[in-house]
Amino acid sequence: MKRVYLDFNATTPVEPEVLDAMLPYFSAEFANAASIHTPGQRARGAVETAREQVAALIGARPQEIVFTSGGTESDNHAIFGIVEAASGHEKHVVTGAIEHEAVLNACQELEKRGTRVTYLATDPDGQIDLAELRRAVRPETVLVTIMHANNELGTVQPLEEAGRIAKEADVYFHTDAVQSAGKIPIDVNTLQVDLLSISGHKLYAPKGVGALFVRGGTRLRQLFYGGHHQRGFRPGTENVAGIVGLGKAAEIARKSLQIATRPFATRSPVARKRRCRTAHSEHNESCFSWRRRRSPPHRARLKGSRVFDRSCLFLGRRRAILPPEEARASLRFSLGRHTTEADVDFALNVVPAAVAQLRELSPTYRKEATAHS
Amino acid sequence: MKRVYLDFNATTPVEPEVLDAMLPYFSAEFANAASIHTPGQRARGAVETAREQVAALIGARPQEIVFTSGGTESDNHAIFGIVEAASGHEKHVVTGAIEHEAVLNACQELEKRGTRVTYLATDPDGQIDLAELRRAVRPETVLVTIMHANNELGTVQPLEEAGRIAKEADVYFHTDAVQSAGKIPIDVNTLQVDLLSISGHKLYAPKGVGALFVRGGTRLRQLFYGGHHQRGFRPGTENVAGIVGLGKAAEIARKSLQIATRPFATRSPVARKRRCRTAHSEHNESCFSWRRRRSPPHRARLKGSRVFDRSCLFLGRRRAILPPEEARASLRFSLGRHTTEADVDFALNVVPAAVAQLRELSPTYRKEATAHS
Repeated sequence: MKRVYLDFNATTPVEPEVLDAMLPYFSAEFANAASIHTPGQRARGAVETAREQVAALIGARPQEIVFTSGGTESDNHAIFGIVEAASGHEKHVVTGAIEHEAVLNACQELEKRGTRVTYLATDPDGQIDLAELRRAVRPETVLVTIMHANNELGTVQPLEEAGRIAKEADVYFHTDAVQSAGKIPIDVNTLQVDLLSISGHKLYAPKGVGALFVRGGTRLRQLFYGGHHQRGFRPGTENVAGIVGLGKAAEIARKSLQIATRPFATRSPVARKRRCRTAHSEHNESCFSWRRRRSPPHRARLKGSRVFDRSCLFLGRRRAILPPEEARASLRFSLGRHTTEADVDFALNVVPAAVAQLRELSPTYRKEATAHS
Repeated sequence: MKRVYLDFNATTPVEPEVLDAMLPYFSAEFANAASIHTPGQRARGAVETAREQVAALIGARPQEIVFTSGGTESDNHAIFGIVEAASGHEKHVVTGAIEHEAVLNACQELEKRGTRVTYLATDPDGQIDLAELRRAVRPETVLVTIMHANNELGTVQPLEEAGRIAKEADVYFHTDAVQSAGKIPIDVNTLQVDLLSISGHKLYAPKGVGALFVRGGTRLRQLFYGGHHQRGFRPGTENVAGIVGLGKAAEIARKSLQIATRPFATRSPVARKRRCRTAHSEHNESCFSWRRRRSPPHRARLKGSRVFDRSCLFLGRRRAILPPEEARASLRFSLGRHTTEADVDFALNVVPAAVAQLRELSPTYRKEATAHS
């Protein structure tokens, strides 16, 4: 049976070149990067090369990169680290309503601990309102955290402007760039961010490794404590193979960002034929979604499709921007670096029949369809 | 140039069989274990198999295993998780003076946050005094955390008795088993522990993955927040390849623990010839150390060696049990699963000359040697 994977926003495979770079660090070069002997120092060198590669991807300095266990740890480190290092009894944080759970749930935990949090609403495309952000920032605000690209909608937020607002108010600015790093160009100075989260497995590096950019001079508390610190920020034996993989993946992504991009999905003949508007980032990552129609299943097919620009919908969060029945009926598709037009055509051909079949099985759908037809 | 690695307490290589088990999960089987589609469910299955393998190594139930990014996170999760979930204004923790930094520094952070901590002294072999532990536990004690085997001394603590003391006082009991898991038999019920930390890279699995045993019913707070929870304990996309590796390594270790052990180091003809007492665990992991002699360098050699039973010394911590000059002059050697007698003989032959050479270069050593000779 032919299978096409279109869930690259959930995770990506490790690129063969990345795995090749990692392999020696599992066996021949397995030493601890904190060991002072020669093999340890070779491992240290590999970690520092990776730090340079990750820094280069986002326009940072190597010493501003902290390696973590992934995007969730990076987000939590940024949020708790800034709030807990800040002085003052009253503390306030501004974030968006459609952030990733790693940000939203950390903010909810902050609220339990006495920090006030403002959740900015978004428009139907998932975009925050800069005027609302400006109004939300107040004297006791210690952090603004707004994601770069949304993992479900694909929306890219106006970080440069948001960063300017945070800077004018002298407030730390963090962005969860887990979905954008390696896909669209990022420069931490242009975006005016003080902290930026990266996850390895979203950019063709392995799971279990990530990075946090921490601008020099930022007052950040550790998330946990131990030996072998990275600039006092992150203890624990470094995941050398994973870090080497993240570095290599960052290097590959940086180079491929420089290649002229091709908006292939919009040119797909099948997509055109079906009048299916598609979306894509500069790096050929696209998301589609089908909207459930209030019509009998056999007529639903692709005519009922609604496609968001740079958007992908996912169960749960999408309810922030869609009515419940549309949210329940939506599907997220996300393309990868090696997805071909043939893969997209295949999906466009098989999905409508599968949707129709599922609708036949769904008592809820049939009931609603009857009610509305 | 021939090299022999004798620093296996710092880290171990990934076993070829472990790497083979991991490899598919970087590429063909790269899906996110939280994805509901077929590839995602295959990844989920691999994670759950690993959970069973790790549980089997320590006599736990699979649902009592939480995967983490390593030993440091496991220790921090146990310590902060228990203390922060505990009720009461006054909280107190008991630990040992020669714990790993992941425990000691977490406890020091607890003190900054208002929790009182008692650090139990150890005898010259690094052993805690059970009577002292019994005296230290008081009504407001919420956690006793005592490591299983020391990473520098090799000392194995009397956990069963310590666990009984904690249980009688109705206090949670955690052990950092990072250095013992996979080397000596562990049964969480015999040891009466409620929480137990494991690190992958100490038992021939990769760096960047670990586990925390959390006995069912334990009140533990999360260390950080996000999506894709493991029983509400640990968010973030699971490091499938690393977890599969940890599971495989646990399975291999469990089988090899059942093989009759051979105390090979003591039988080494070179070691015998040099009257060098050596030490070893049941799993052929041994540690030696050389003591600096108050004698001119050319007479130092192996005649001055002092070897601790099951001990290995490491710069820094050893000062808790040795006078400063002995601590400065000690060396940690730790053997691995595949270390041969020839490797040990090689080290026993080359180290004394290297030590003598270093002493020639050391102004401190020469000064003291002159003063004492």
